[in-house]
Amino acid sequence: MRVLVPFDGRNPNSRLSPTLSAAERRELADALREDVLDAIRNAGAEPLVVATTDVEASAPVSVDDRSLSTAVNARLEAETPTAVVMADLGLATPRVLSRFFDASGDLVVAPGRGGGTNALVVRHPDFRTDYHGASYRDHLRAAHELGASVREFDSHRLATDVDEPADLAELLLHGDGRATDWLRDAGFELATTDGRVGVERHH
Amino acid sequence: MRVLVPFDGRNPNSRLSPTLSAAERRELADALREDVLDAIRNAGAEPLVVATTDVEASAPVSVDDRSLSTAVNARLEAETPTAVVMADLGLATPRVLSRFFDASGDLVVAPGRGGGTNALVVRHPDFRTDYHGASYRDHLRAAHELGASVREFDSHRLATDVDEPADLAELLLHGDGRATDWLRDAGFELATTDGRVGVERHH
Repeated sequence: MRVLVPFDGRNPNSRLSPTLSAAERRELADALREDVLDAIRNAGAEPLVVATTDVEASAPVSVDDRSLSTAVNARLEAETPTAVVMADLGLATPRVLSRFFDASGDLVVAPGRGGGTNALVVRHPDFRTDYHGASYRDHLRAAHELGASVREFDSHRLATDVDEPADLAELLLHGDGRATDWLRDAGFELATTDGRVGVERHH
Repeated sequence: MRVLVPFDGRNPNSRLSPTLSAAERRELADALREDVLDAIRNAGAEPLVVATTDVEASAPVSVDDRSLSTAVNARLEAETPTAVVMADLGLATPRVLSRFFDASGDLVVAPGRGGGTNALVVRHPDFRTDYHGASYRDHLRAAHELGASVREFDSHRLATDVDEPADLAELLLHGDGRATDWLRDAGFELATTDGRVGVERHH
């Protein structure tokens, strides 16, 4: 199956700017994207990076500077089934992606923490995405309006997009790819507090 | 299967104190615990609340004011298989708990966001819990040291304990039990920002 991997190279991981410099955020974003591409290939599927600017990646890249939803929808219009997997799912493994791609339903949706849509399989030819706002609910509603069958896919790995400083702790806890190595090399380690584990940085 | 549901009635959900009063936190904690007890029963298992103080619940309650790990371990020593499910997993459903209880392994572990251990099935008679700090990793290590087989259970629903204000958004997004109703009645609704969805309260 064709898997679109949207990638915005202009200011990646901007919500990590309190923690990482612009150059570091770009390095981390590249490492995350390459981890995701590996996991998709090892799950037996074919990734296509849909990028806002030209980037060097280990998979074919299609440059499209329109909005995320417009760029994805143009490709859904051309071909289904098609999957969409976000480029910052640093805990995605071939195993969970295989299960995800194989799950039945006109629409298979993996929610992201905070209401986003981290991964989709679209088998209904008329389904269109709208990534603005709390897209998870909007995607469920759009599928119901089409009469499309929906499978909600429950996965912590796919729910974890690396977006905020607390997500770095998830990478250190559960990741084992380039992005996790990058974080360790950059001096990050787990910091235990009374509640959830966070990260601290040693230079 | 016997399922222990630890419940600390003394100062529940203390990390929600910026958002909720002490009385409200108690009400929410009671609603979450009852939702979890329902889900366990509807998954065909038998909950036992292990509480620090006497509480009124819809399942048998065993009062044990020792530490969480000590109280749980005393019961693991007496009987395996035994499961442990945290009382604040507001997104737990009978469906995901059935899959969880049926998963194979001497130890089945569902990580919580931030390195905790949100749910466990213990089939190895010598395994003991240690909930202090980043317990997920410690539990994996302890199982490996025993030579016990481990299944890591990947679920966003089980990874979501209601602990911090952002978790309330998950309840509003994906929950449908008493706790979600309580939040709505208390005036909470989703607030869309540029990144993840949060909550805001209208009185």
